[in-house]
This record gives sequence, C-alpha cells and structure tokens, in this order.
Amino acid sequence: MFEYTFLRDYTTQLFMKMGCPIQDAKIVADVLMAAELRGIPSHGLMRVKDYFLMVDSGRINVNPKVKIIHETPSTATVDGDNALGPVAAKFSMEVAIKKANNVGTGWVATKNSNHFGIAGFYSMMALEHDMTGIAMTNANPLVVPTFSVSKFMGTNPIAVAIPTLKQPPFVADFATTPIARGKLAIMGKKGLKAPLGLVQDAKGNPTDDPDTLLHGGAILPLGGDTITGGHKGYCMTALVDIFSSVFSGANFGPFVPPQVAYLPLLEKSVGEGLGHFFGAMRIDSFRPANDFKQKMDEWIDTFRNAESGENQPKVMIPGDPERLNEEKLRKEGITIMPQVLAELNEVAGKLGVDILGEK
Amino acid sequence: MFEYTFLRDYTTQLFMKMGCPIQDAKIVADVLMAAELRGIPSHGLMRVKDYFLMVDSGRINVNPKVKIIHETPSTATVDGDNALGPVAAKFSMEVAIKKANNVGTGWVATKNSNHFGIAGFYSMMALEHDMTGIAMTNANPLVVPTFSVSKFMGTNPIAVAIPTLKQPPFVADFATTPIARGKLAIMGKKGLKAPLGLVQDAKGNPTDDPDTLLHGGAILPLGGDTITGGHKGYCMTALVDIFSSVFSGANFGPFVPPQVAYLPLLEKSVGEGLGHFFGAMRIDSFRPANDFKQKMDEWIDTFRNAESGENQPKVMIPGDPERLNEEKLRKEGITIMPQVLAELNEVAGKLGVDILGEK
Repeated sequence: MFEYTFLRDYTTQLFMKMGCPIQDAKIVADVLMAAELRGIPSHGLMRVKDYFLMVDSGRINVNPKVKIIHETPSTATVDGDNALGPVAAKFSMEVAIKKANNVGTGWVATKNSNHFGIAGFYSMMALEHDMTGIAMTNANPLVVPTFSVSKFMGTNPIAVAIPTLKQPPFVADFATTPIARGKLAIMGKKGLKAPLGLVQDAKGNPTDDPDTLLHGGAILPLGGDTITGGHKGYCMTALVDIFSSVFSGANFGPFVPPQVAYLPLLEKSVGEGLGHFFGAMRIDSFRPANDFKQKMDEWIDTFRNAESGENQPKVMIPGDPERLNEEKLRKEGITIMPQVLAELNEVAGKLGVDILGEK
Repeated sequence: MFEYTFLRDYTTQLFMKMGCPIQDAKIVADVLMAAELRGIPSHGLMRVKDYFLMVDSGRINVNPKVKIIHETPSTATVDGDNALGPVAAKFSMEVAIKKANNVGTGWVATKNSNHFGIAGFYSMMALEHDMTGIAMTNANPLVVPTFSVSKFMGTNPIAVAIPTLKQPPFVADFATTPIARGKLAIMGKKGLKAPLGLVQDAKGNPTDDPDTLLHGGAILPLGGDTITGGHKGYCMTALVDIFSSVFSGANFGPFVPPQVAYLPLLEKSVGEGLGHFFGAMRIDSFRPANDFKQKMDEWIDTFRNAESGENQPKVMIPGDPERLNEEKLRKEGITIMPQVLAELNEVAGKLGVDILGEK
C-alpha cells in the first residue's frame, strides 16, 4: 500500500528524470494517478514503462511546443508536437474551457499527440468551471468494422462529465467497444472462455477464445453481431476516430501509430501522430446554471431509484464506481501489482531514481 | 407504387388540412418522406395517423410560435411551443447552422417539442453548408438502465453527418439501443424468437420472447448484459436523454410525454414536452475545408476496402444503405404497406382529402 501523494510525487520524479519540465511531469503523474484512484489501473502506473520506452527510443518528445495552429471563436486545432498525450490533452482541454468562457462552448481537435491516459480526466476538468466536459481519442487498431476482418479501429473511448448541485457529478467514461484487450488477456491467463459477442476469429467467425487477438482475431464493435446492434457500435467507434483524426489532421484508424516501443513504426502515415477531440459547454449557455444543476440532480435521483432486477445489484449512475473507488483509495492507499512494481523499479533503476520498496 | 413528389405533396396537403401553415406542413412532409426514401418506414408515413390523432386531440399545437429563449454566440435554447417535432427541430437546426457560421460551431437544445421523425434529416441539413451536423432526441421510455427493470429511457437516437469531397457523405443515424420496438413486434407476429441480448422479462432476466414488452419486459441497452458491455450502451442512451432534456428544460427519461394519442398524458412532469439537441460545426473551423474533405474521402476509401469476413457482405460506410435505398426509390417509386395506406385514407377521409387509390 502506498499513499496517493507519495506515488504521485514519485511518478512526477520519474518523468522529470526522463527530461520532462516539472509542470509536464506533474500533468502526466496526475493523469496516471487519476486512473489508479478511479480503479482503471490499465491506464495507470502500468503505462510508465511503455511511456519511458517510447521516450527513451526518441518516439515521444519530452520538450514539446504544444500550440494552437488554427482557430475560430468556438474552436481550435492543437498541434501536440509529439508530446506525451496528457501534456497535449490537458493543454487542449484548457483551450476548450477558455473558448467556452468566451462564447458558450469550446471545441478542440488535437493532432500529433500520443496515448493520453483516461479520457475522464479531461472531461472532469470542465466541472469546476460549471461546464459539461467531453473528451475522446482514437487508439491502436484492434476492432473490426461490421462484416470485416480488418482491424481498423481502436477501443476509442468517450468521456462526458456533467455538473450537478448536491449529487456527485455524472461522469461517463467508456470505451466504445464491449471489452478492452487487457480484460481478454486476463481471461486467457485464467483459462476462461470469452462470452460470445466480444471477439471473432481470423476469418470473422464467432469465437470464445480470449486469446484470439494473438491468432489474427479481433474485438467486435459494441453490440457484437448486426442482429444485436453491432453496426451501431461500429458507428460510435468510427465517429470517435473521425472526430479525433479527420478534424485535427492526426492519423486515423489503421494508421494510428503504435503506443508501445516494441511495435515498429508504421510504414504509411495519413496524418500526424494520434488524435483527440475535446469539448467544453458552459451550462449557463443553455439555461441558468442553478436550474441546470437542480434538474441534473433530479435526473440522477430518479435513475438512482430505478428498481433493480431479480438478483441484480443497485442501479448505478455513470461515475459511481470510479468515485467510490477513489474515496476508498485516497483513504486506504494504493496497492501496486507486483509486476507493475517491478516495471516501475526497472524504469527507476535506468533513470537513477531510488526504487520503491514493497509495501 | 407512388412517385416521391406525389406522396410528398399529398402528405403536405394532409398536414395543411390539420391546420398547419403551408411552410410547416411542407417541413413535416419532407421529414416523413425522407424516412420513406431512406428505408426507415417506421418513421415515415406510418406516423401520419399518430400525428393526426395527437393534433386532433389537442395534444400538439399546429400554430406554434417556435422561438429562442436563451442564447450565447455559440448556443441557443429553443422553446418548440408544443409544435409537431419536425417544425421545432428544423428551426433549431437552422439556428445551430447560423451560430456555426458566426463563431465556428452552433449548439441548440430544444424543449417543448414532440416526435421529430428521423434524426438523420436534421444532421444532413449541415452538409450543404460544409458543416458536420449532429442531431439527437429523447423518446418514450422502453429501455432499462443496467441492472434495472425500470423502463426509464427511450431508444434515443443520434445522427452525425460529415461532409466529403467525392465520396457520398458519411451519415450515421442510429438508435442507441440494440433494436427498435417495431422490429420486435414483427418478430412476434412471425412467431420468431428474439436473439438473446435484446430484451429482458419483467423480472430483469434474459428472454427470447419478442413480445416481452407487452408483459412488463424491456429493451436492453446496446451491448446487452454488463459482460458484453451493456453498461456502455446505458451511458450512451443516458447521455442522449440528458443532452435532450436537462440542457433544454424538456422532460427526461420516464417523464417524456407519450407520442401516441391512445396513451394518456403522464401525471408527473419534470419539464416541458420532449427534447432534442443539435450541433453544427463548420469544417473549416478546424482546418481548411478542402483538406478536411479530402481526408474524409481517404477515411471512407480505407474503410470501404476493409476485408470482409468469411461469408460476410461488403463492408459498408454509415449512410450507404440509406443512400442506396433513396436512389432506388426516387427512381422506382415508393410502395406503401396496405395497413399504412388504410391509415392514410382514414385520416384523409376525416380531413376531407381525396383518398389514395391502391397503386
């Protein structure tokens, strides 16, 4: 068990030693630690070694000049200068918030960026400004369009955070696909079968093999087959890709650059780096802020009191599980899996930073 | 078989006889006929009788004063004055386009409206202005939140239309749920079982009964169970509801007023009427319009050439099936199902309009 602030400062130190300016190192640490706190460790400290190897091999720029390259009163396009994703993304969301302050809403497309951690982090930046925040990103391709065996899309998440009055904020943060690669790998290691509707084999047929990605298989869009609405999932995932790439000038779909150093750079490029898209909407640009928040509380109250099905748990509001996890971990501390601890210490050793003891 | 223009003018006449000003009658006819052309007859002429009965019973206002009640440079809130949905919705999308012309993007939340037909119609209005168009609406509750038996959400569709250069535009227009009520009813009439993952019974357990809605059952969110990502579908459907209601001041979730006259008005109201949400984004507010369109063409080319799975059809781009249907029907004419023809003639009889012969 480690205290949150200790781990955050330790992670900051690692990124400073990689060459990041202190303010950038702090951003990256904040974003990775937010994932740990919110119970999404796949986007937390588990990424430190990947980020380090990308920096170490010169594939990520730790001294970027992130800047606006195109704008209108309500929009901007940001060139991330191949920064660590959180650095480009936080800058972009700040621009969106500034625009929203001026004209009601702000929308920013970001190119030439990298893996940005959890989308929820950026959407939640809007909350303290009494704004609804939106963040999305494209990602490395693992997912097929409907009817296809071509892995052309990532798990492309969307996050939307909406302000409330007395209720905790509504924070939806979800991959637009039924499952993430990490969860499939865990099923495989445990010798479990994957439920049908999550993955297909190399020929595009249904399979329950959780390791199918290793044998040419792919993740299906949300909804699975067309009979269960998978073409709607394809639409969602495609939209996140287009908003993140065609709007900004980043690479789309199959051309999103790998975010791990052990995969070679792609031969073909159709844009610059990986892309994101952000939005901020002042709630009082639609109705008085207090009316909005009261109604949002009422929405949440209503849905929280929905009746549970037989043997089902209590109905949740998007953001509930992550918030409860964060409250617990801020109090009790954070457990790091042995493998992740070993990776952190391997990175620390290479950077000349004291290693973390097991706690 | 009827010619498109004949049916459109006939429908216009019906709505004029119901008391709509000619320009409003034309809008409603255009929207319903767009659904016919695009192969979505459930949102086409099949709605004329429902709309008529709502008007006839005084539950819809055919002489509305649709107006902006709140605005910023990039946003507006529109009061639909209980208009026919297409009238309030087209007005709102025009406001969004005007705002986008001024400041890059425009966002409009609409309250006090009714069933608006196909979302795709409004999103596609943006295309000729070189804008991306977005439209969504909440709808009568049939869908449960994850873990629940409370039908608190509609099939809440989203449409997004994106401009292209030589390719036909990308038009995604989809319910955020795996299936619509109409399709379940057809399965029931044919004596077919519903595939698992679409619906649940009154206790919240899986069922293959397509008539389960008649016995207290419900439609599941896109993704079905949590193991196949249904909680992500819940997030999507909830977001469309919130954007359509909390932003605008319309009723949310279980309080959306019934859109058929045979269902009584609800006792409790938490806002005004049914709600929509619209967006328009000038593509040159992010990068030069031609760059954007060329890249969008390249995206479409890439996905169109994705490899098909074994025994699977060609991979499609969102909007392909609807566009092909429209091309065919504009040339060959439109077939009206006997039951719908009978309904149209019943309405025509009551309004003193010549009935349609069978063709």
